[in-house]
Amino acid sequence: MGSRSTVKRADALRSIDAIVKAAAECMGENPEASLSEIARAAGVGRVTLYAHFASRAEVVDAAMSRAVDRSNDALDAVDLTGDPLLALARYVEASWHLVDQARALLVAAQRELPPGRIRELHSGPAARVETLVARGRAEGIFRTDLPIAWLVNVLHSIMHSAADEIRAGRLTSDRAAGHITATVLASFTPPGSPVPEPDAGV
Amino acid sequence: MGSRSTVKRADALRSIDAIVKAAAECMGENPEASLSEIARAAGVGRVTLYAHFASRAEVVDAAMSRAVDRSNDALDAVDLTGDPLLALARYVEASWHLVDQARALLVAAQRELPPGRIRELHSGPAARVETLVARGRAEGIFRTDLPIAWLVNVLHSIMHSAADEIRAGRLTSDRAAGHITATVLASFTPPGSPVPEPDAGV
Repeated sequence: MGSRSTVKRADALRSIDAIVKAAAECMGENPEASLSEIARAAGVGRVTLYAHFASRAEVVDAAMSRAVDRSNDALDAVDLTGDPLLALARYVEASWHLVDQARALLVAAQRELPPGRIRELHSGPAARVETLVARGRAEGIFRTDLPIAWLVNVLHSIMHSAADEIRAGRLTSDRAAGHITATVLASFTPPGSPVPEPDAGV
Repeated sequence: MGSRSTVKRADALRSIDAIVKAAAECMGENPEASLSEIARAAGVGRVTLYAHFASRAEVVDAAMSRAVDRSNDALDAVDLTGDPLLALARYVEASWHLVDQARALLVAAQRELPPGRIRELHSGPAARVETLVARGRAEGIFRTDLPIAWLVNVLHSIMHSAADEIRAGRLTSDRAAGHITATVLASFTPPGSPVPEPDAGV
């Protein structure tokens, strides 16, 4: 491959990277941000944007994929060993922080992407919770009367509903983590066992 | 008003009713049903449909309002007195049945209507749960460490997430009611109290 095509390819990669970054930023502030705004923020022309992305959905998908990659990196740093209750509380705290940062982008994704694709994008975080829930069940801490996939889905929907509540001005971001943790820990508790007290180190 | 305008008005009301009914049916089967399909199913021309509804969102709003009115009627028949746990289980069972019937319509509504409008449409059912939760809290059965609005929202998001799971082919409609009830009862349980056993008449 000649040096001219190498330069062209490097230019294209740089443009794509700038567009995806600008999309995450613009849609992170306003889920209805237009493609023109995004092109402007990326410092590229609309023609360049359309050369790389066929539709608004493709831009949203790329921005969301980028946010998910970063979230996976951040979640890698969370210690999910030890007491399953404490590990779950740490996971909820860390992942809520990520959902909270990406709230507006998530709204754009929910509008533009099919539910199957959103689920696919969540498969990395979901796998982490599945492993943790399975361990907690084996240790008798989490309930076994409901499927693991259901419990993971409950956790994600409670987090997303907190994001909705914040958007509606009915919840503040700083109180959300406590509400989510208290609700998720209770919903994972086996029937007949006491719901964990929030002051028991959880 | 002359009899000609009375006849015209009666015709218009009949068309609007047929369109809203057809919209609920068509979108109930396929959230992406087109306005042409809906007009055809209603037995009216596209011009008539557009004479009464300015946009797809207006049609979805009318169909959703109709479903909510019917749901409110059905929920009026649910006995919410007596043991708050049993009352909540009855409410969840009845309202899940309604959500399950309107699943595809709900998808259309989530795509077309702003979240604030969807919340507004849910205010009738939400008020019922609020009253029940307040009574259960006063009787020491439900937790008081989280706001009532949060608990009501948790209930609705668990139901909507069950609808998503069914759409994804990961849950069957007949198992959903049990999963939802078990999860909601646990999440409403006060810290330190045991999660209700499903065989304890709940």
